[in-house]
Amino acid sequence: MSPTLTPSPIVATVDFEADGIQHGFLRLPYSRDDSAWGSVLIPITVARNGEGPTALLTGGNHGDEYEGPIALFDLARRLSVDALTGRVIIVPALNYPAFRAGTRTSPIDKGNLNRSFPGAPFGNPTEKIADYVTRHLLPLADIVLDFHSGGRTLDFLPFAAAHILEDKRQEAASFAAVAAFGAPWSVKMLEIDAVGMLDTTAEAMGKVFVTTELGGGGTATARTAAIAKRGTTNLLRHAGILKGEVERRDSRWLDMPSADCFTFSELDGMMEPLVDLGDPVVKGQPIGRAWPIDRTGSAPFEFTAKMDGILAARHFPGLVRAGDCIAVLGTI
Amino acid sequence: MSPTLTPSPIVATVDFEADGIQHGFLRLPYSRDDSAWGSVLIPITVARNGEGPTALLTGGNHGDEYEGPIALFDLARRLSVDALTGRVIIVPALNYPAFRAGTRTSPIDKGNLNRSFPGAPFGNPTEKIADYVTRHLLPLADIVLDFHSGGRTLDFLPFAAAHILEDKRQEAASFAAVAAFGAPWSVKMLEIDAVGMLDTTAEAMGKVFVTTELGGGGTATARTAAIAKRGTTNLLRHAGILKGEVERRDSRWLDMPSADCFTFSELDGMMEPLVDLGDPVVKGQPIGRAWPIDRTGSAPFEFTAKMDGILAARHFPGLVRAGDCIAVLGTI
Amino acid sequence: MSPTLTPSPIVATVDFEADGIQHGFLRLPYSRDDSAWGSVLIPITVARNGEGPTALLTGGNHGDEYEGPIALFDLARRLSVDALTGRVIIVPALNYPAFRAGTRTSPIDKGNLNRSFPGAPFGNPTEKIADYVTRHLLPLADIVLDFHSGGRTLDFLPFAAAHILEDKRQEAASFAAVAAFGAPWSVKMLEIDAVGMLDTTAEAMGKVFVTTELGGGGTATARTAAIAKRGTTNLLRHAGILKGEVERRDSRWLDMPSADCFTFSELDGMMEPLVDLGDPVVKGQPIGRAWPIDRTGSAPFEFTAKMDGILAARHFPGLVRAGDCIAVLGTI
Amino acid sequence: MSPTLTPSPIVATVDFEADGIQHGFLRLPYSRDDSAWGSVLIPITVARNGEGPTALLTGGNHGDEYEGPIALFDLARRLSVDALTGRVIIVPALNYPAFRAGTRTSPIDKGNLNRSFPGAPFGNPTEKIADYVTRHLLPLADIVLDFHSGGRTLDFLPFAAAHILEDKRQEAASFAAVAAFGAPWSVKMLEIDAVGMLDTTAEAMGKVFVTTELGGGGTATARTAAIAKRGTTNLLRHAGILKGEVERRDSRWLDMPSADCFTFSELDGMMEPLVDLGDPVVKGQPIGRAWPIDRTGSAPFEFTAKMDGILAARHFPGLVRAGDCIAVLGTI
Amino acid sequence: MSPTLTPSPIVATVDFEADGIQHGFLRLPYSRDDSAWGSVLIPITVARNGEGPTALLTGGNHGDEYEGPIALFDLARRLSVDALTGRVIIVPALNYPAFRAGTRTSPIDKGNLNRSFPGAPFGNPTEKIADYVTRHLLPLADIVLDFHSGGRTLDFLPFAAAHILEDKRQEAASFAAVAAFGAPWSVKMLEIDAVGMLDTTAEAMGKVFVTTELGGGGTATARTAAIAKRGTTNLLRHAGILKGEVERRDSRWLDMPSADCFTFSELDGMMEPLVDLGDPVVKGQPIGRAWPIDRTGSAPFEFTAKMDGILAARHFPGLVRAGDCIAVLGTI
Amino acid sequence: MSPTLTPSPIVATVDFEADGIQHGFLRLPYSRDDSAWGSVLIPITVARNGEGPTALLTGGNHGDEYEGPIALFDLARRLSVDALTGRVIIVPALNYPAFRAGTRTSPIDKGNLNRSFPGAPFGNPTEKIADYVTRHLLPLADIVLDFHSGGRTLDFLPFAAAHILEDKRQEAASFAAVAAFGAPWSVKMLEIDAVGMLDTTAEAMGKVFVTTELGGGGTATARTAAIAKRGTTNLLRHAGILKGEVERRDSRWLDMPSADCFTFSELDGMMEPLVDLGDPVVKGQPIGRAWPIDRTGSAPFEFTAKMDGILAARHFPGLVRAGDCIAVLGTI
Repeated sequence: MSPTLTPSPIVATVDFEADGIQHGFLRLPYSRDDSAWGSVLIPITVARNGEGPTALLTGGNHGDEYEGPIALFDLARRLSVDALTGRVIIVPALNYPAFRAGTRTSPIDKGNLNRSFPGAPFGNPTEKIADYVTRHLLPLADIVLDFHSGGRTLDFLPFAAAHILEDKRQEAASFAAVAAFGAPWSVKMLEIDAVGMLDTTAEAMGKVFVTTELGGGGTATARTAAIAKRGTTNLLRHAGILKGEVERRDSRWLDMPSADCFTFSELDGMMEPLVDLGDPVVKGQPIGRAWPIDRTGSAPFEFTAKMDGILAARHFPGLVRAGDCIAVLGTI
Repeated sequence: MSPTLTPSPIVATVDFEADGIQHGFLRLPYSRDDSAWGSVLIPITVARNGEGPTALLTGGNHGDEYEGPIALFDLARRLSVDALTGRVIIVPALNYPAFRAGTRTSPIDKGNLNRSFPGAPFGNPTEKIADYVTRHLLPLADIVLDFHSGGRTLDFLPFAAAHILEDKRQEAASFAAVAAFGAPWSVKMLEIDAVGMLDTTAEAMGKVFVTTELGGGGTATARTAAIAKRGTTNLLRHAGILKGEVERRDSRWLDMPSADCFTFSELDGMMEPLVDLGDPVVKGQPIGRAWPIDRTGSAPFEFTAKMDGILAARHFPGLVRAGDCIAVLGTI
Repeated sequence: MSPTLTPSPIVATVDFEADGIQHGFLRLPYSRDDSAWGSVLIPITVARNGEGPTALLTGGNHGDEYEGPIALFDLARRLSVDALTGRVIIVPALNYPAFRAGTRTSPIDKGNLNRSFPGAPFGNPTEKIADYVTRHLLPLADIVLDFHSGGRTLDFLPFAAAHILEDKRQEAASFAAVAAFGAPWSVKMLEIDAVGMLDTTAEAMGKVFVTTELGGGGTATARTAAIAKRGTTNLLRHAGILKGEVERRDSRWLDMPSADCFTFSELDGMMEPLVDLGDPVVKGQPIGRAWPIDRTGSAPFEFTAKMDGILAARHFPGLVRAGDCIAVLGTI
Repeated sequence: MSPTLTPSPIVATVDFEADGIQHGFLRLPYSRDDSAWGSVLIPITVARNGEGPTALLTGGNHGDEYEGPIALFDLARRLSVDALTGRVIIVPALNYPAFRAGTRTSPIDKGNLNRSFPGAPFGNPTEKIADYVTRHLLPLADIVLDFHSGGRTLDFLPFAAAHILEDKRQEAASFAAVAAFGAPWSVKMLEIDAVGMLDTTAEAMGKVFVTTELGGGGTATARTAAIAKRGTTNLLRHAGILKGEVERRDSRWLDMPSADCFTFSELDGMMEPLVDLGDPVVKGQPIGRAWPIDRTGSAPFEFTAKMDGILAARHFPGLVRAGDCIAVLGTI
Repeated sequence: MSPTLTPSPIVATVDFEADGIQHGFLRLPYSRDDSAWGSVLIPITVARNGEGPTALLTGGNHGDEYEGPIALFDLARRLSVDALTGRVIIVPALNYPAFRAGTRTSPIDKGNLNRSFPGAPFGNPTEKIADYVTRHLLPLADIVLDFHSGGRTLDFLPFAAAHILEDKRQEAASFAAVAAFGAPWSVKMLEIDAVGMLDTTAEAMGKVFVTTELGGGGTATARTAAIAKRGTTNLLRHAGILKGEVERRDSRWLDMPSADCFTFSELDGMMEPLVDLGDPVVKGQPIGRAWPIDRTGSAPFEFTAKMDGILAARHFPGLVRAGDCIAVLGTI
Repeated sequence: MSPTLTPSPIVATVDFEADGIQHGFLRLPYSRDDSAWGSVLIPITVARNGEGPTALLTGGNHGDEYEGPIALFDLARRLSVDALTGRVIIVPALNYPAFRAGTRTSPIDKGNLNRSFPGAPFGNPTEKIADYVTRHLLPLADIVLDFHSGGRTLDFLPFAAAHILEDKRQEAASFAAVAAFGAPWSVKMLEIDAVGMLDTTAEAMGKVFVTTELGGGGTATARTAAIAKRGTTNLLRHAGILKGEVERRDSRWLDMPSADCFTFSELDGMMEPLVDLGDPVVKGQPIGRAWPIDRTGSAPFEFTAKMDGILAARHFPGLVRAGDCIAVLGTI
């Protein structure tokens, strides 16, 4: 049987076509040693008020990123149907097993959801979620907002972003949505390795697609949570789904033009940062050091900037391992 | 045999009485399944220049706190014996197995070193380390600086601190050392549950003792690492061990006067912070919310300030569990 | 190369065509960290007495279900070849790694054998077992009996069952076999999600196929073990393979007509059952409660029957998790 | 410092001396890798109506036994203060970490709470709980009911029990309480290895002490939960704390007179039970078999009754390991 | 997109076409819970001196085999470009995650690299390594030497080997290379189950391919390390890449002619070897015993030789499990 | 209660005073999550023929050492009571949980049995075993033989040994027993850190005590197993318990005179041995190298002999970690 004809095992307890607001679940059967007839219940909210565009809002694509889930649990609770025209579909914790565990990937199958698209109905649970999004949620949507942050191991300047696309009308609509979101920083991304991402899948279906990186470290702050909440409201207003005016904010556009932006460690050690997020750096400037931890008296390895720019992202944990990306520079 | 007469199994490869600088190890025999005759090698540096006072500088008491280890690996490497009068003993990663694992407690025995003092020579590895510090390192020291930060699960305003003590001369000397350290914040602490701490053990031996909390989240920043480095230099100068003048900095004194400072969660959920570190709050003000994560549409639990103050510390991970301390307020 | 042409890596140490009784193994090569040239040895018995029909009897498809393995280890030991006409192939513990671990799925690869059919010769060990059954054992069989019980997480009224099939002659032969088995309860099943099951694979090959659910909880009782033993003997007699008369027993036919039979929990908690297996219930009657366990004084969630019927199956462990099936009702 | 002088680290959020009903927690500080300032919150209910006797009711001493927790969460919710004279202290899940994990022992420290009494204030979390019970809860109580069942690995005929004691007045009061409880079976126990038990600790303090074994397998049934609920109400009425008459029930007294009651396995294998709970057996009768599982065709080991009696308890899991107790016989 | 057109995610930091010697890495992106933008860095050395043949030398295909990595780390360090004509590509620890863990298979994905060829660019990390070797390294090579030993669970007489091939010119060239290697033993292998091996993949591309088994037990000795070093030098000289004469050594040719060479255990127990590696045996001679370990006084199972020969390989760990290969006999 | 008055929870199923041969168990109750009333059964054999001396023979003190268990399971099976005068007590696998797991320490409690003496009756299972040996087995013995080998992480020249003792008569008797054992090497040991050993405990009770190191690596060879068997027989004959003459063998006496015998690694890496067991070395000679494994082209660290001697023991696994003992030299 062709995969595209195999029905998804996931069943929604909400009716996507009903007016009003419903809080329910995507129920994903998951037979396992500790529950032979168990399932994973992914919380979902559908709010609809007659005809109009549909926004799909997702958080928890990676399970250790919190600005999106905070904004979306909050939105699901305070959304008034009367303020809507059209429909909002909210899934605040898309890879729910990962979100519940507080880990990037799913503890069930180690699946990285944003590398599992378009998914498969007979794959592992992560692939089943991707498939349901691809075949059941994305087709309902006109505009898609998928929240990300750095998670437990990276930290970012807060930005919203869209991709440079072949279809320039779609691209322009996406960047307009990014501007409406109004994060402190905005980014035009040229994705090189886009295999398996929700981004690519949504874009290939012609959707207006916005993503974010709003902080990191496996936590949220009052400041970054507020950015996520305001950005969500702005986006829905921009899309004509939510009543009210977009609250415009200054946002600086940031570029990551080349491979010189990225610094990888080639050794294990303890990270000593020499610049913080947002600090300007010039080419050749030391930006961090990796200390060997097995003895005192050894020289640290010093990382230097390969270009002028500002520090846009960094490795978060105090220890670094060979192969880790330890810094990303951006240009304004 | 009395415990106090049992020799420590730990052997130092450095000579504490020799002039000059030595980088070596405290070797702790540790027989285990993957090394029958293995040992743990804890890096240590001893720098001495003739007679004079001795400072004991320790980091990595908890293994996921990085400002101290950064400052001390750095000091061990750049310390010039000529600039000294007396002796500096540096152990940058005291609970070395925990430090290597990047965890608060030791992966070997789950020992929390700062709850294991005065230790025992025939206990588990963590207790053996505590015992060695108690019986072999502390007696050598006049002044002790033990670095802490919040680790992976807490975040603090950066401060140095000493305890309110019965011996007021000892107390005064300790607070003078805190002031010399020059962190952005300084704290006078009244420890209530002091059982098992290095602090108490050192103070009971009459030492001038300084501790810190310099950030948290399981990372360090350029800013907090600089505080730790400057503070260490200042302390050694203040103690007359290192040549040069103390670099004076403004520091604000912060109090944590009562149990009302501390807020604990009584439920599991996702933390939404409503204020950030250093923000002022007034009694009754919402400071955070805990969202139930098993469904959308439920109300979050709201935490409110029990007093006026500023946010001095907070729970770091995005998820919170019942029993976690989620906020600490201080007063200026 | 086509999968159907790839030879199975499994080698049988028994000769399926030889007369007499042989106890041997299906040897499945399994290279791993603790045995580079290791294998899994799945016990098998083949008993043959000249020409005649072949029965394939399997237990341990799920590794925590015991009535089948008890009946089949017992049969393998006491079977007299003289009492046979034709052949009996007995595999008492089909997913042997799971059976040895006492878990539903295989500890080696987490494979759920009854969701892995028809299998693959180059897949994981569970898929290799499925493939061997599909390509080497099923083709030898005229009648197939695959034992199940509820395992550690479900408990069932004891029943034998067959599926409603398109081929009505095959269906009739299967229900006749169920009746001969003579469990206290008998069920006509309309499988909706039959992907990956041994059942479907055997039926698609035209075999008479009988399955069971004979209790659960990860144990067996004297009573349920006796049902399994008597049913096996009856089935072999019914098939004309074993001498003697079928020992007829009253069996009540049970239906599970609709989705209303199944109750799923949408919350975590402690299960308080209000009815036991076999108890009659009426629509709207409370059948169980799920207590929040994080505090006293909260109200439990109450599950009510969505139809009239009797309790045919239930969640077994004392704790329940969101998504678990907590009760199945049947109608007489 | 003497252990008896060290204060418990556990803090109650309820006031044991206040009238009315309070639902709160015993807060046990528990610093760990995933929460530096975390704690364990053990739910507790205190209901008081003026002067009168105090009953201490505990469940979840072992974390996989459910009749007690069901009866006590239920009682805590439906208890009316007006119906009381005196005080009821309810801790439905005493070893809360074990209860939450659904395991006999605590996942934190592997502590078996009922082998940890009288406990220690500076021990592991399980020992701290025991110490708090010993020094803070037991002194408040006149009568103590501690619920047990067989847990995941044993199954019992449902009984309440008290111990044969040196103080015959205390013993008589205890057996009167057992009779009031009204379980289907009642037992007079002569504990031989009583080291570390709550039972012994309470009895040594002169308390009337009742314990139970009400089923097992890591589940509860509607029937056994009802026994626990009725027994609790009866006991409180018997003690004069709860209004109303004891609901008298027939109960059969069961003895376990000698070591011949207990059968241990000396080999690993699969258990085939030949008698069920409550079945009568005669000396020499086969009561179960252990099948070798590594090959077919081998003889099972047969266990025979060493005395006349009835089957009072049995090993629950389908697999048995050398050293397991597989059956306990009782005499009527 | 066709798999063969999907680019490998692995990036080399060395230039395969540059003259001189370079030490670098194959960087394999590996996003995971503890490093969202992490990678695996596989050490590689490329040494080139103008035109000439290319040798690909690999160790650590299985991570617990050490003669190859010792010889290749050593060669990479002491290789003089001036002594070369052509190119040497050295990957001393091909399945680097397995090598770092000291395990046969990769701790990341449990992949057995030598059962994962030809690999896949979008598979798990082990499959990505295989794919890179297949599509990027093998095409560069004229001669390939892939080191193996017995690893932690097998022990071998030290030998080099090549396969009997359909292309007799290729076969002759391979055996000439084996002879040049000069191990104490040499083997002509007829691979029966060659699915997934580097061997087969290289041979199918027409390469001269040499493999080894040089000892085992998860260690190396001075003797076996010297065999590996000398053999590597000899092979490079034989191939005309390294200056100097092949150091000829006596090598005895060993055959493993039939399934009778291999003895598998059908039971668990403790292994008592009765002959050692290299010892001659005659058909019917006891070569080892497996002792039941659950009780004293039981008879051991005795394994006997199924043919005349010498002991060429044996199970290494003291305990044996059913299904393990416990001995391999060879004939001279 | 004093520890010495607390009875051991261990019960023997054999009668130490009965004539004849008995195979039974030491039953150690061990309540755990997967068996509430479980126990550990340690196999034991007692053979007695009237009055005479008693030998206690133990293997599996560390669970990954096999020469002793092989010799003792074998002796238990083939021992003829008629050949005895007095008594032999055989415990082939003393730390049975460790032996069953094939690990040095117990998987239950991580206990190193030979660091747990004299043990405690209320400690963990390993301490309970030590206590039983100290209080119940050692008092019965006149001569004690405790087998050791290097286990999975060390490899030794095969030797028997006794300690230099204050009681010179006891010492002489012990060395006479070593000589009778007849291993290829014999050692006079001056134990410095003898805390917790069976050796010290037995010697303090005045017993003649012999220990061994007969190989290692977590395996046995035909050669080392034969040494163990012959040595056991010799010892029993020497003690006058077994009939027959001691089979005298040449044995070379080996000394380990100073700390210079031992070489520890101060870095992680891959071990390249440059000499093998038994090879002579001279002071300053390189004996091994540790290769950094994170990149090619780095220099290895070279270990050199600190004295003249022969290689008596070595680190076994291919990888080495900082703190491991990598070589022991002896002098003849």
